[in-house]
Amino acid sequence: MIIVGELINASRKLIGKAIEEQDCEYIKKVARDQADAGSNYIDVNAGIFVGQEPEYLEWLVKNVQEEVDIPCCIDSPDPNAIERALNVHKGVAMINSISLEKDRHDKILPIVAGTDLKVVALCMSDDGMPETTDDRLKIADKLINGLVQNNVPLDNIYVDPLVQPIATKDTFGVEFLDAVESIMNNFKGVHTVCGLSNISYGLPKRKFMNSLFATMAISKGLDGLLINPLDKQMMANILVAETLAGRDHFCMNYLKGYRKKKFEF
Amino acid sequence: MIIVGELINASRKLIGKAIEEQDCEYIKKVARDQADAGSNYIDVNAGIFVGQEPEYLEWLVKNVQEEVDIPCCIDSPDPNAIERALNVHKGVAMINSISLEKDRHDKILPIVAGTDLKVVALCMSDDGMPETTDDRLKIADKLINGLVQNNVPLDNIYVDPLVQPIATKDTFGVEFLDAVESIMNNFKGVHTVCGLSNISYGLPKRKFMNSLFATMAISKGLDGLLINPLDKQMMANILVAETLAGRDHFCMNYLKGYRKKKFEF
Repeated sequence: MIIVGELINASRKLIGKAIEEQDCEYIKKVARDQADAGSNYIDVNAGIFVGQEPEYLEWLVKNVQEEVDIPCCIDSPDPNAIERALNVHKGVAMINSISLEKDRHDKILPIVAGTDLKVVALCMSDDGMPETTDDRLKIADKLINGLVQNNVPLDNIYVDPLVQPIATKDTFGVEFLDAVESIMNNFKGVHTVCGLSNISYGLPKRKFMNSLFATMAISKGLDGLLINPLDKQMMANILVAETLAGRDHFCMNYLKGYRKKKFEF
Repeated sequence: MIIVGELINASRKLIGKAIEEQDCEYIKKVARDQADAGSNYIDVNAGIFVGQEPEYLEWLVKNVQEEVDIPCCIDSPDPNAIERALNVHKGVAMINSISLEKDRHDKILPIVAGTDLKVVALCMSDDGMPETTDDRLKIADKLINGLVQNNVPLDNIYVDPLVQPIATKDTFGVEFLDAVESIMNNFKGVHTVCGLSNISYGLPKRKFMNSLFATMAISKGLDGLLINPLDKQMMANILVAETLAGRDHFCMNYLKGYRKKKFEF
């Protein structure tokens, strides 16, 4: 399971403020906390700063990697911002994200083609947001094939089937979960990743609902999550779900997590 | 989702004592609590009392149904005990269970054949406990076909694929979950049910693990559970899992559960 820590996102008030004020210490603290909590990547997003995004994204990557030894997930649709961030990035970054929207696709593909970068392939096209499993599979199929033809190996592709709010349509949970299962079965070696918070949009007890949706998605094969790794209940759910899904040899991670008191909530 | 309340089982100390002392009030209280918590059936089991099981099972059914209006799940391998319990039972009972063990199969089949009784079909044979998905499917196939040929409609059959402890083998969770999915896909109209506690045998934080395993099983199609309905976390998990699995029109049950404070844990 790949955990992408989602907290360094300029749309979050304190992060936006820290970026504007160039407060390195705060950014480093949030990076450190997320790494300590078990993140494999630190997402960096400066999307709200129109015009300054490339400069700020570079600054974020520099500061995060001065503090922690893990790679960044560079979260931007802007090729200039991504290139500047990559220029200062150490190790193998993840690009978040390519999609089937023509403009975005044409700009991001040259960046990842023939490299060893990881890339999130978002199931979105110019026809809008996918609703059904089939919508998602069609987009995933085109995205994966396009990437593979451009020398991005399956193992570097993280398909995001795009979670939609269950309050909008009863079937939006199932359509997503079935898409995860089909993608993992049809493209052996590819990965799947998602954010969760959309699922519970408009409903109460969102954190609880999100963590159970993660559990279900893991049982369907999901192996990447963009989450707040400081959410202990979520992290405990992931740990247990992985064990139950047969990904924890002799339950060692589970028992280690228990001894480290990861279930104190 | 069918909830079978599991608490009236003579192997539980206070229940065993209440049966021996013919303490109607205690049995009625446990029946009432389970019904109020949302049970669809009340399991009754007097299996530890060799020789007296028929008499005690009849007594349990009588007392439970004097208190609550829901049917019993008659939990015994003994045809005499089942018959005595059925003689006093009001409404349509569930029989727990038939299996592919020859002796048990031959004794239970005549009881349910051609009736409108519900029946739990346990994936166990004379070869022992099933380990793989395929083991379970082979047994389920024979059990279901045998029952249907004896005029038990699919809708009255609850296949229990038999949960095995994950601490024994890493894959025991997945093998079970995949069996649920295959049974629900291959025999449209049949149901699946299980107890959960085996999954976490020998591990810490068992209630948490059990409730996440229930969540995963629901995402695979499971529609029956033999549980302690007084476990609020488990019941909240089931409520949310059903919503996420697309079984809750307009999220109405979820919102109703929230207003009734079913998430206060």
